[in-house]
Amino acid sequence: MKRLLALSLVASSAFGVQAQQKTLMGFTPANSAKQLQTEQQFDQSINPARIGETLKELAAVPHHIGSAGGKAVADKILARLKSYGFDAKLQPYKVLFPTPKTRLLEMTGPTKYTAILKEKAVPGDEYSGQAGQLPTYNAWSADGDVTGQLVFVNYGLPEDYETLADMGIDVKGKIVIAKYGKSWRGIKPKVAYEHGAIGCIIYSDPKDDGYVAGDVYPKGAYKNETGVQRGSVMDMVLYPGDPLTPGVGSTEKAVRLDRKDATTILKIPVLPISYQDAKPLLEALEGPVAPAEWRGGLPITYHIGPGTATVHLKLEFNWDLVTAYNVIGVLKGSTYPDQWVLRGNHHDGWVNGADDPLSGQTALLDEAKAIGDLLKTGWKPKRTIVYCAWDGEEPGLLGSTEYAEDHEKELQQKGVVYINTDDSSRGFLSAGGSHALENFMGEIAESVIDPETNVTVAERKKANDLVNASSVKAKKEVMDRKLDKLSALGSGSDFSSFLQHLGVPALNLGYGGEAGGGDYHSINDSYAHYVRFKDPGFIYGALLAKTTGHIVLRMANADVLPFDFRSLYTTLNGYSKELIDLTSNLRETTAMQNQLVKSNAFKLAADPTKKLATPTAKPEVPAIDFTALTNALDALKVSADNLAIKLSTATESKIDKKALNEIIYKAEQQLLSSIGLPRRPWYKHSIYAPGFYTGYGVKTMPGIREAIEERNWTEANEQIKAVSATVNALAAYLSQAAK
Amino acid sequence: MKRLLALSLVASSAFGVQAQQKTLMGFTPANSAKQLQTEQQFDQSINPARIGETLKELAAVPHHIGSAGGKAVADKILARLKSYGFDAKLQPYKVLFPTPKTRLLEMTGPTKYTAILKEKAVPGDEYSGQAGQLPTYNAWSADGDVTGQLVFVNYGLPEDYETLADMGIDVKGKIVIAKYGKSWRGIKPKVAYEHGAIGCIIYSDPKDDGYVAGDVYPKGAYKNETGVQRGSVMDMVLYPGDPLTPGVGSTEKAVRLDRKDATTILKIPVLPISYQDAKPLLEALEGPVAPAEWRGGLPITYHIGPGTATVHLKLEFNWDLVTAYNVIGVLKGSTYPDQWVLRGNHHDGWVNGADDPLSGQTALLDEAKAIGDLLKTGWKPKRTIVYCAWDGEEPGLLGSTEYAEDHEKELQQKGVVYINTDDSSRGFLSAGGSHALENFMGEIAESVIDPETNVTVAERKKANDLVNASSVKAKKEVMDRKLDKLSALGSGSDFSSFLQHLGVPALNLGYGGEAGGGDYHSINDSYAHYVRFKDPGFIYGALLAKTTGHIVLRMANADVLPFDFRSLYTTLNGYSKELIDLTSNLRETTAMQNQLVKSNAFKLAADPTKKLATPTAKPEVPAIDFTALTNALDALKVSADNLAIKLSTATESKIDKKALNEIIYKAEQQLLSSIGLPRRPWYKHSIYAPGFYTGYGVKTMPGIREAIEERNWTEANEQIKAVSATVNALAAYLSQAAK
Repeated sequence: MKRLLALSLVASSAFGVQAQQKTLMGFTPANSAKQLQTEQQFDQSINPARIGETLKELAAVPHHIGSAGGKAVADKILARLKSYGFDAKLQPYKVLFPTPKTRLLEMTGPTKYTAILKEKAVPGDEYSGQAGQLPTYNAWSADGDVTGQLVFVNYGLPEDYETLADMGIDVKGKIVIAKYGKSWRGIKPKVAYEHGAIGCIIYSDPKDDGYVAGDVYPKGAYKNETGVQRGSVMDMVLYPGDPLTPGVGSTEKAVRLDRKDATTILKIPVLPISYQDAKPLLEALEGPVAPAEWRGGLPITYHIGPGTATVHLKLEFNWDLVTAYNVIGVLKGSTYPDQWVLRGNHHDGWVNGADDPLSGQTALLDEAKAIGDLLKTGWKPKRTIVYCAWDGEEPGLLGSTEYAEDHEKELQQKGVVYINTDDSSRGFLSAGGSHALENFMGEIAESVIDPETNVTVAERKKANDLVNASSVKAKKEVMDRKLDKLSALGSGSDFSSFLQHLGVPALNLGYGGEAGGGDYHSINDSYAHYVRFKDPGFIYGALLAKTTGHIVLRMANADVLPFDFRSLYTTLNGYSKELIDLTSNLRETTAMQNQLVKSNAFKLAADPTKKLATPTAKPEVPAIDFTALTNALDALKVSADNLAIKLSTATESKIDKKALNEIIYKAEQQLLSSIGLPRRPWYKHSIYAPGFYTGYGVKTMPGIREAIEERNWTEANEQIKAVSATVNALAAYLSQAAK
Repeated sequence: MKRLLALSLVASSAFGVQAQQKTLMGFTPANSAKQLQTEQQFDQSINPARIGETLKELAAVPHHIGSAGGKAVADKILARLKSYGFDAKLQPYKVLFPTPKTRLLEMTGPTKYTAILKEKAVPGDEYSGQAGQLPTYNAWSADGDVTGQLVFVNYGLPEDYETLADMGIDVKGKIVIAKYGKSWRGIKPKVAYEHGAIGCIIYSDPKDDGYVAGDVYPKGAYKNETGVQRGSVMDMVLYPGDPLTPGVGSTEKAVRLDRKDATTILKIPVLPISYQDAKPLLEALEGPVAPAEWRGGLPITYHIGPGTATVHLKLEFNWDLVTAYNVIGVLKGSTYPDQWVLRGNHHDGWVNGADDPLSGQTALLDEAKAIGDLLKTGWKPKRTIVYCAWDGEEPGLLGSTEYAEDHEKELQQKGVVYINTDDSSRGFLSAGGSHALENFMGEIAESVIDPETNVTVAERKKANDLVNASSVKAKKEVMDRKLDKLSALGSGSDFSSFLQHLGVPALNLGYGGEAGGGDYHSINDSYAHYVRFKDPGFIYGALLAKTTGHIVLRMANADVLPFDFRSLYTTLNGYSKELIDLTSNLRETTAMQNQLVKSNAFKLAADPTKKLATPTAKPEVPAIDFTALTNALDALKVSADNLAIKLSTATESKIDKKALNEIIYKAEQQLLSSIGLPRRPWYKHSIYAPGFYTGYGVKTMPGIREAIEERNWTEANEQIKAVSATVNALAAYLSQAAK
């Protein structure tokens, strides 16, 4: 029967169903054929128009965590999941969530200006003037009432303060104004505080997502003069989730920290403003003209200050506990009920959140609906499928983190994979995650067709990479690649706890790149904006549902889970090479810099009228021994190769597949370190973490990499040992599995 | 006596006069010592305060060619040169010089706007509101009365039109608006015309030299909202000078072309405007948003057009013949009166011209004064020194070109070197010229002390290059270099005819890099602006006078002229390698591009909603044979090396130095081609020319390089032969000289 089916599928390829010839990773040929049929059925259930309707319904009113609109969205998702056949329930947590009580920003000198701090309703966008919108603010700002001289600090990154130091400017006791962009916003007040600032203003420069980028809303998609990006400034790189319950689920009865002891809450007041409000402040600055690369798109000469420009910033918040309503829908596996394929996306928005998060959430719901349709045909998942809609992602991954912490043991035991989406729009597939899933993700990208070009999304992505590669050499590399690299995951969405705290393999994906805009976290992230600029017709929403659906369905029904640790080895080996190069480049540049200092070149080159400080010599970079790491990687290569040989015949062998699969999906946990990363033990994964000074941006092998970047050589050596230990543990584990 | 003097000088080095130990290139040890003493005396005569006074006097009123102010400046320079002991006279030519009769620019749709076309007087700058200012215009624009849709073309370079073509936009029958910058301004209307445009507007974007660059005048040095850059748009890359008398001096009796036959006069009307006038025009544009790198600093979204934005441009000029008053001052050589060291700088400005040209002209006059002071002590130059102040440089190198054409034979016979300066300000030495003078120029740069740092200008320049080199590798290269490279000369000042038409060795130098501004060719290039922002105290003016003075004095009195053709060989060999690399890179990128076209990558990567054209395949780059050139260079290396051996002992040998020196300075003429460059026979030099599509910017080995850039392979092969012929001729010539 199986054989016959396979033959008939090969025959049908002559009529264009070519993909069906293929044996899928982790499936027997016969099960591959069945699986592809299931996916075809699944795809037929996905409905772009329905996705649009769901988006319109869920984005109808503001629905941040703690709001009536938010609870209503959770209830609607719950009802849908139930109606699709999922065993669904609300899973609430009690979390801290600050909302503004007082917001005052005024320039007190040399002239007076009081900031408006209010986004303007937009003609033609019925959502933009609704009641229930959160005011413009940064969650987790400190309460504060400060007055000080203003200093412009570019994007507010550590290197910007080095530039300021070169100019002899410090921000101690002053209030800084930083541009949104380049780093996660929470880094800006944190670094400002580290440098002694007493307050921080963040504004959206028109060069970044305003009129310089494109026509502003409502004419175009970009930020108009009153648009403001809300957002969390929690120091999430220490730990995400409720600041009062690190490491444990914030249930009603959970033991809570005193708020003053919560290290992720900012120590200074922080406020986001529009470029309309920023202009008078920046215009009043004196002091040196900002370096060319600091200047934005306002029609002024950007100065740095400090001078007579003084501002008064007063912020007070309601520090309330609110309920985060996660929605969890379970579809029990027929064969392996204790192996869970988790699929999630948050449902809370800062305001109406049409793009962020509902573009991903509505794709998720259409997947669930299509899976429900499959159930009606008698299809059953072998593994348990868990659909999750998280609340409180925006303030700091609250819902997903508390859930993950609350279910730590169970998730580490049962979690096969966590598949995340968030905002998504027209364009190209972008995917990140656990690198043992790289080949699998490549196969997925070949299983879905881009609706604009009618080629696979893998092929379209490759074409785009080819066109954009900057040199002939880079183009050749793209041309020669077998499949796209998975990017590594930092932070910024709900995969974080699963991957970085628990070691559950994770994927995060979305489409984008053809739909810019300035609506992010503003009242303009509305259905009206989305349908005009992000994904008219919701065809990429449908594509996302198909893409993610294929992942869920294959993971749920694979005979042998489609992990390939050879890709993981290759990736880790690449990181190791990067770190070795980083160290030797740093050694070379330090030596050169010191030579220039010694030869007086900086002083001679400087314009004496500018009275800039000139660089001083830095300690030379010592020899760093990476042998332990390269040895561990050599061992990993051998065991990954051996396991791959075993897995290549495993689907049709008689071995205990339940046990084998459990070994495979738990392998990622070998990369966890029991003590976690330096100064942030919540982050256990030794390979992936959000950067201490980048926020969302990932640092791979973060312990080693950040030690090198900070020139902390003792720690670099320690961390080489620590990472080598987890890689060795994984190598031994896989070697055992390969037997 | 000579021996004794040398000894005493060595002894004095213990007291810090270390430079005096040195034997100068081309001087016997004894004559080196004398020469250095002369230069010390010379330096003591240079007076920064006097330079400032001269600047104030000459920049008192507008003094463009044909104006009363211009004639007065010429007369003042004449009087000064005479008073310093020069045999000076005015050398007038009759040249065409258009001035505006009618200037009208108005937007006729979708709304109405009439451009102001007038720079505003600046409070605190008494010069800015004077009578006699030329209106804002581009000389050599066509007369015209055109109305058309407006299209924004970025900087108006050939590649910008390729981008437009990719967007499916053409400018045929339309009026373009281009930003000043990136290329010489005359390229913009020329390329616009080549693409079928009927008019061209050029504006100064605030990103380039307005408020984005720095505080605007009078608060800072940069261009305020009404500032306009005047300037010539003559198609000078065909030939400079009076358009009616190509190749011959425009004396009263010269045969003149009919104006319509003068190929260097533009075919369409062209007008420069301020950013205040440009804003309503740009704001009215529709069509696609301009690519990110096209966008400027106005607070608008830059669109390309075309659309309903329509402009009417009406320009009429007075096409008058005016007199260019060159001032020529001669100091007859005591030993070699028929070997001329020429030193020049123009004296006409677009308005008051404090920086351009008077910063260089006043240094020149102070040199002349200091030479006059030397004369009084009994010192005499061995060679004839000719000081030149040119008129009509601004409209198109009129004065110098007519002089050079008029004295072609004499200059080719007697011209040892032509040393040019133009605008100059605080900062670093920048020098370009004939590469056989590279070592000599390095020696000069070590003979003058930077007043801000008290190290030689060579050392300071090296420090700056070290600091700014972008990589460790690049820094190492700077560190290892013995002396700074001379840059190659394109156009933009009065060296052009001497070097590129006659083959007289040339140098062009100035200081700069620490004094930005937006005053260029505007009413704000005033004494008031200069003294605040460009060179307060005129210490760099004094430094320039010393630097150039040392060149003049050494060239005038060297026993053997300090040319070293080994540097020329090294430079030419570098150009040859560049061209070989350029060809193979072009071959590689073309092949890759074609592969991408064939694989459909551009179509697949494109956003289908944008409906852009995608690139098409180009003919592959054939094999190009550079053997003739590399062989010629091998021969040049041998002869340059042999001649260097001979010259190393020549100062104290008994050979006929007059004849030897004549051979040396005429060597450059071997690099002239009798038929000149393709399509522009006036340019005879086979190594240096202004680029056909860059204007001021040089193209080295231009015949070959531009043929490659234009993918004209037949011409590339022909030009390799042509350049090889001149290099071979030089090799044979030097080989003969080395005997």
